[in-house]
Amino acid sequence: MIAIDAMLSSRINPPEYHLQDYAEALDALIECAAACTLCADACLGETGKVEQLRGCITMNLDCADVCATTVRLLSRQTQPPNQLIHAQMHACVVACQLCADQCAMHPMHKHCKICAEICHICRAEICHICQEHCNFLLGTITSAGIAEEKSSI
Amino acid sequence: MIAIDAMLSSRINPPEYHLQDYAEALDALIECAAACTLCADACLGETGKVEQLRGCITMNLDCADVCATTVRLLSRQTQPPNQLIHAQMHACVVACQLCADQCAMHPMHKHCKICAEICHICRAEICHICQEHCNFLLGTITSAGIAEEKSSI
Amino acid sequence: MIAIDAMLSSRINPPEYHLQDYAEALDALIECAAACTLCADACLGETGKVEQLRGCITMNLDCADVCATTVRLLSRQTQPPNQLIHAQMHACVVACQLCADQCAMHPMHKHCKICAEICHICRAEICHICQEHCNFLLGTITSAGIAEEKSSI
Amino acid sequence: MIAIDAMLSSRINPPEYHLQDYAEALDALIECAAACTLCADACLGETGKVEQLRGCITMNLDCADVCATTVRLLSRQTQPPNQLIHAQMHACVVACQLCADQCAMHPMHKHCKICAEICHICRAEICHICQEHCNFLLGTITSAGIAEEKSSI
Repeated sequence: MIAIDAMLSSRINPPEYHLQDYAEALDALIECAAACTLCADACLGETGKVEQLRGCITMNLDCADVCATTVRLLSRQTQPPNQLIHAQMHACVVACQLCADQCAMHPMHKHCKICAEICHICRAEICHICQEHCNFLLGTITSAGIAEEKSSI
Repeated sequence: MIAIDAMLSSRINPPEYHLQDYAEALDALIECAAACTLCADACLGETGKVEQLRGCITMNLDCADVCATTVRLLSRQTQPPNQLIHAQMHACVVACQLCADQCAMHPMHKHCKICAEICHICRAEICHICQEHCNFLLGTITSAGIAEEKSSI
Repeated sequence: MIAIDAMLSSRINPPEYHLQDYAEALDALIECAAACTLCADACLGETGKVEQLRGCITMNLDCADVCATTVRLLSRQTQPPNQLIHAQMHACVVACQLCADQCAMHPMHKHCKICAEICHICRAEICHICQEHCNFLLGTITSAGIAEEKSSI
Repeated sequence: MIAIDAMLSSRINPPEYHLQDYAEALDALIECAAACTLCADACLGETGKVEQLRGCITMNLDCADVCATTVRLLSRQTQPPNQLIHAQMHACVVACQLCADQCAMHPMHKHCKICAEICHICRAEICHICQEHCNFLLGTITSAGIAEEKSSI
């Protein structure tokens, strides 16, 4: 999504970690939220099979809500990242995993099959950003540590 | 967004109006919601100018919420469209117009400039879908009328 | 909800129209959004009847989203009300009406029966606020008109 | 909120843990989401102090989103609780704590003071439900274990 990319790089204080990765994670989350909303509705339209798909519908609705909230939190970058963003990303990884699992149980429904793939991609992107966050924080701590060590010599 | 396209065409009962237009409208709405959330936060980060941007921040937050809800409603296609979808699309057109106007007042902030453009595109896409909906409904009424006329002969 | 009341009256610039009515409208919307989310899920749990309740589930999900967004917009009062708030309140009135109608079709399901009542109350509260808004605007216009007339004498 | 209570007890499959506690947790979350949205807007209205309140505004917006999503997930009870609900409740407890801390830093703004209290109440309610969930799961595991032991005799 070109828009997200352009919006992120137009900030006076762009995020310190790799911009491209950030934009990709937001894209993946947005796509996943949309796919889950569409899959829930498509499942509800599967005449004769709706009751078997109840678990999938609920999981889709949950995953759509969780991804939407995670996008909101990740979009707010004026303040430095805090524990909340980590806890919410963790919830999001769980949501994407469970939703992918549920959808993968009904590959005969093409919408479930595609949705499972989208959830998997989203999960991977969030994990990647989580790791970057951690590396970034680790870098800050390490440099602080080195600076401290140096200054204590 | 390939995902939206694939999800829409995977339904057993795909929407009756032009699929490509539908996917584009969902894309535009999703992008607009994301851009508005990012613009609100970027405005909040404009040290020394935040108070001048209060109207813009509020409008961005409103527009993000309205677009997000409109995506949800447009994604639910198992049931035939009703008056609600029209009323919500109307609210969305108003939101995009007002948000574009607000953002266009601060072109010196690049994020506002880009966000204004995205809101304009979104507004146009929703108007287009609204018109298709109307034409489709009109078509249904007309064919029903013709069928009725014929049957009454 | 005492919290909403306390929050509204704690502002440095409380809304100009009757505070109590405002708090009641927010309460009604919040309650309606929650009831609709609960009703959608309870319908999904009605083994053997889910397919008959598909229209109700969809309408509940739509109404929950629309009410949630209307709460957000009505809560933002730092900026003067604009056309968007009217358009969104209109969409909300339609949502509550349609959802009440859908739920009222299945009074044998207690959750649908209660949800219909909550939607009706919410619809009435929003209509009331809409009217106050209009009266307030009308008052402004009238006083402006009178002031203008006086000044032109 | 009588509505939530009535909706919960009207289900054909009411939640297995204590209904009253559940209703109170939903109430607290809903109230917290509303209070945070109102506080963010009230902070934005504090002329001359908005820039000092940026951290508070962002935290309020985040907490409102997280609480809203947690309400949605907790409302869906047709399916048995899974890891997601725990992860999301954890994120919610973090959000309420951080938001209460931020708001408590500006007790001179009455809306921040009240919002801090509401966040604290919400945090306590979610912790309580989390514990009940765990006890319930523990109970299930224990009884299963005892049943297994008995059957193996």
